[in-house]
Amino acid sequence: MVNRNIIDRLGKLRRKMESLGIDYFLIPTADYHNSEYVAPYFQTRHYFSGFSGSNGTLVVGMEEAGLWTDGRYFIQAGKELEGTGIDLYREMEEGVPTVSEWLADRMPQNGTLGFDGGCLNVRQVRNLRKKLAFKKVRFVSQYDPAEGIWTDRPALPAHPAFVLGEEYSGESTGSKLARLRKKMLQAGAQVYVESKLDNLMWLFNLRGGDVECTPVALSFGLVTMDRQVLFIQDREVTEKIRAYADSIGLELQPYESVSAFLEDPEIYRRAAARGGTADAGKAAADDDQEDCRVFFDPGSLSIRLWNAFTKGREAAGIKSRTHYDLEKRSPVEDFKAAKNETELKNIRAAYRDDSAAVCRFLYWLHKHVENGTVDSLTEYTAAEKMDSLRTEIRDFIDLSFGTISAYGPNAAMMHYSAKKDDCAKLRPEGMLLVDCGGQYLRGTTDVTRTMALGPVTEDMRRHYTLTAVGNLQLLDAVFLYGCTGRNVDILARQPLWSTFVDYKCGTGHGIGYLLGVHEGPQNIRWRFSEGMAEAVLEPGMIVSDEPGVYIEGEYGIRIETILEVVEAAKNGDGRFLCFSPLTFVPLDPALIDPAFLTPQTRGVLNRYHARVYAEIAPLLNEEERRWLREQTAAI
Amino acid sequence: MVNRNIIDRLGKLRRKMESLGIDYFLIPTADYHNSEYVAPYFQTRHYFSGFSGSNGTLVVGMEEAGLWTDGRYFIQAGKELEGTGIDLYREMEEGVPTVSEWLADRMPQNGTLGFDGGCLNVRQVRNLRKKLAFKKVRFVSQYDPAEGIWTDRPALPAHPAFVLGEEYSGESTGSKLARLRKKMLQAGAQVYVESKLDNLMWLFNLRGGDVECTPVALSFGLVTMDRQVLFIQDREVTEKIRAYADSIGLELQPYESVSAFLEDPEIYRRAAARGGTADAGKAAADDDQEDCRVFFDPGSLSIRLWNAFTKGREAAGIKSRTHYDLEKRSPVEDFKAAKNETELKNIRAAYRDDSAAVCRFLYWLHKHVENGTVDSLTEYTAAEKMDSLRTEIRDFIDLSFGTISAYGPNAAMMHYSAKKDDCAKLRPEGMLLVDCGGQYLRGTTDVTRTMALGPVTEDMRRHYTLTAVGNLQLLDAVFLYGCTGRNVDILARQPLWSTFVDYKCGTGHGIGYLLGVHEGPQNIRWRFSEGMAEAVLEPGMIVSDEPGVYIEGEYGIRIETILEVVEAAKNGDGRFLCFSPLTFVPLDPALIDPAFLTPQTRGVLNRYHARVYAEIAPLLNEEERRWLREQTAAI
Repeated sequence: MVNRNIIDRLGKLRRKMESLGIDYFLIPTADYHNSEYVAPYFQTRHYFSGFSGSNGTLVVGMEEAGLWTDGRYFIQAGKELEGTGIDLYREMEEGVPTVSEWLADRMPQNGTLGFDGGCLNVRQVRNLRKKLAFKKVRFVSQYDPAEGIWTDRPALPAHPAFVLGEEYSGESTGSKLARLRKKMLQAGAQVYVESKLDNLMWLFNLRGGDVECTPVALSFGLVTMDRQVLFIQDREVTEKIRAYADSIGLELQPYESVSAFLEDPEIYRRAAARGGTADAGKAAADDDQEDCRVFFDPGSLSIRLWNAFTKGREAAGIKSRTHYDLEKRSPVEDFKAAKNETELKNIRAAYRDDSAAVCRFLYWLHKHVENGTVDSLTEYTAAEKMDSLRTEIRDFIDLSFGTISAYGPNAAMMHYSAKKDDCAKLRPEGMLLVDCGGQYLRGTTDVTRTMALGPVTEDMRRHYTLTAVGNLQLLDAVFLYGCTGRNVDILARQPLWSTFVDYKCGTGHGIGYLLGVHEGPQNIRWRFSEGMAEAVLEPGMIVSDEPGVYIEGEYGIRIETILEVVEAAKNGDGRFLCFSPLTFVPLDPALIDPAFLTPQTRGVLNRYHARVYAEIAPLLNEEERRWLREQTAAI
Repeated sequence: MVNRNIIDRLGKLRRKMESLGIDYFLIPTADYHNSEYVAPYFQTRHYFSGFSGSNGTLVVGMEEAGLWTDGRYFIQAGKELEGTGIDLYREMEEGVPTVSEWLADRMPQNGTLGFDGGCLNVRQVRNLRKKLAFKKVRFVSQYDPAEGIWTDRPALPAHPAFVLGEEYSGESTGSKLARLRKKMLQAGAQVYVESKLDNLMWLFNLRGGDVECTPVALSFGLVTMDRQVLFIQDREVTEKIRAYADSIGLELQPYESVSAFLEDPEIYRRAAARGGTADAGKAAADDDQEDCRVFFDPGSLSIRLWNAFTKGREAAGIKSRTHYDLEKRSPVEDFKAAKNETELKNIRAAYRDDSAAVCRFLYWLHKHVENGTVDSLTEYTAAEKMDSLRTEIRDFIDLSFGTISAYGPNAAMMHYSAKKDDCAKLRPEGMLLVDCGGQYLRGTTDVTRTMALGPVTEDMRRHYTLTAVGNLQLLDAVFLYGCTGRNVDILARQPLWSTFVDYKCGTGHGIGYLLGVHEGPQNIRWRFSEGMAEAVLEPGMIVSDEPGVYIEGEYGIRIETILEVVEAAKNGDGRFLCFSPLTFVPLDPALIDPAFLTPQTRGVLNRYHARVYAEIAPLLNEEERRWLREQTAAI
């Protein structure tokens, strides 16, 4: 079977490449902001390949094309690429070349690589440059591959932005800017350029609706010692936004003008004159030249914006030198991750309401099991029920991601998505995994529970129990300040590793406040790939705790509880931190085999369940409450 | 009280500094090889400060002087520096500046810093250069501060070296060199320069006697594709060594000639012509210039040797460029750490004999307790007994470090050293900590046990038990290939951290084969300071497992068992590793409070004790065996 659509699109792209003298075109999954999820406008890789997964890189040559994606999507990509002539490259599998290795092998000497400079970040381009240097490859970054070809391309999203009041944000933009400028001074930077949407939303206390499930507005930002500029589409700027911007001295500029704006030498002349090294320590003062260092994150800023500010600064007569700029994770990333007291108060309340909705859903399922009507449900209708319960919460804005409702073998796929007319029917046996969350004015939630719908096998109970032990061991951890997620990860994995089982993903991720459901810089993982943030766990940080077992073709288990990092004790031996749960949803006692529960974790489980009942019972009706009491009874 | 000796020595040094135009002189604790323990010849820092600890940095200015040391030595340094006018800087304490911060603060603009270029490594010098750049400090590295002042300085040690036969080393030098050259080729390096003594001994299957407790010979090494050179003092070269060197094509050159030798341009011309990039991949072939890249470890190679080879290579007309050389941990470091089958067989046997000696010592102590004669012993006589039992082992060569025998509050000092006429008498109560090890032809050992000499407090038993739980949890770990010591460290610390107690040191270190009792690159720690090696745990690596509790002024507990990394299982989820104990010495049942023992660790303990009995009983006499059976009875 030949996929005419895709072959036709690739043909057009190849003619375009030919006319531009481009040998290979690299098309990542990215917008101009290095977002995890991209708006339809940016789904160029999907358009040219037909592969619809959330992660993948397409490379198109004149005679061949390849698509790289990760383990979550091997099966799906295999199906979707059929008949397109595009080869699938399974990332991280033995013997499979990376994109840059593949290009290093295929590119002709003195060849030309094309990509959209707005969609590749500085680090990615530098890595490619390094890997392809020996072939003296020329990079052409000014073309959008879809332009002139993708005629029915969706418009750039432009939903009205809104202001997040201080009763939700807990800190004014003025205070946030003052903290940022202090960090800039300490680092010796006069200019700060930001393109990460969640960082910009947090900094300016704004939210938007341009990315599904993530309430952000497409924008860029520039901060100097006396100036703060937000680049945002006019169509998104309401009267309220304009008034708010005026009130805090925030300059609004058109989204499209960012490159031209950054090319203006006046910015750098003014920033250099205004200074920024007064308190900057000695590092910045090692010569007498006028300084204009830019603070940016090479892992998120596009090469297009880097080119723009480099051009502008050079035009200002300020020389760029190696290791001159402050190229690292933005301080905003760290500010944002450690939630303030107002945010925490809101988050705790949101999680209570969200947990109650999940408990109601579990009760609803339980009734179906009890009444023998499980067969009347599908994965999709179960997800619908869950979503409708969440929608009722007073400050609900959106889901924080598409609800995963996966029955039986489907749950072994970590990112399974049930479609209305293509999903499994539930049956009164085995397990259903539901992973879901919401966006509220009071924060962003995420939770996973796996439950029995009837009889289950010994293996299922054993694996569920070992997963629970890992989940509870991490929840119960006490650790010294200075630990990262790498230090504690093994607490969640150890029960499974001891039986030679692993889950092929991280144990936990950070979560935003009415922002991304995946947020850095903290992460709970046992190893970090290059460039992945590894941050010290700080009080006020939110992390997920989600070990699991995934047996291909059989079943999947995940238990995800969200934790807040809190102070535990301080003494001569140091400052100890621990976790406090935000999620209050019972684990399924029907899936727990006490034989695999250590006495210590039994205690942790019973205390957690007692807390679940105390927190959630007041939010339930009488029969739901009775059910919750049974579910949370001491084991 | 004024310390005339030290004041007099510092006065002489200051006059020397004045005549040389040096503002500050930096005197680390180091030899020319970045060794952990240095021969008396190199104890210049001790000579000028009076501080006798194994780690410290002295900085002398015209009007002031400071000494930096770590937590193990705060009390001792405070005493020893009294009356010297030298200020003590407690490393890692809040508000205490580092050496470079202190220098950055004190050095005059355009000032001069002196240090012996043979005793500071490339990384240290670069860091200093970076930190002091803003003051445009000049570095003077050609003077040994002690020269002309330290008149009764001990001679450079020069004990005869000896060949370690293949029945011990398990691999010929030829095979080791071939492995090294393959790594050089892969990395694109033509020249390899080595100054770490243990790496050199391992590579050339030699041992020496120049450093107490560490059987190494002072030496440097140079390896190219067709040449291997060892720089060693003539006085150390026996007939046997010379014959051996001839037989394997090893060129011997005088130790003192290394700098002059490395300055010879011919080395680099020849190496560049001979090549070494044939298989080197593309990275090395990115231009047409003649290549002569040097592989060296900037964390151990002295700036003196770096200057020498840089000068020589430049004289050969080969331009040095940034990021040109291969500056990283030597591959030898990794080869050496993963012991081969011959080494492992020997090590296992050596640990069995060594463990039996420790068991006999414990039995001897037990008899004293039983007979009520504990009072007749001191820390020192107990250590003497332990050492004499170890000396009886057939291939014993030396202790692997001075035996630590610490009673009561003395055990709270991790590196306490009892002196014959200045040590505590033992009493029939509380705990004695003994940490000791030996150098054998069959390997290097290390072990710590803490035992009750009579009644102990509840706190002592609780802390001992929590330490034991941590020790056993780590021993029982299963982990995926790719984990470093950072991943597993929390298994040992968690029981203590849960009660807000920490030990201020790593959990475990690597151990050499008839080499250093502390050997990298693997380490079990929860955090790593900058430049500290963090290596993946590989099968055949040896690590210590030594959690502890140290209550200042009261008592100290440490339980140290040595572990071998072994394969556990391989399946679709990955390659799992685990540990197998090498040390077979019982824990003290009198110190274990079952109330704090988790059922899981109780099982691990009972299995371990059963194994101790099985391994050691055949090596004991009847009454010792009876005692061991009691000590290892299931709890």
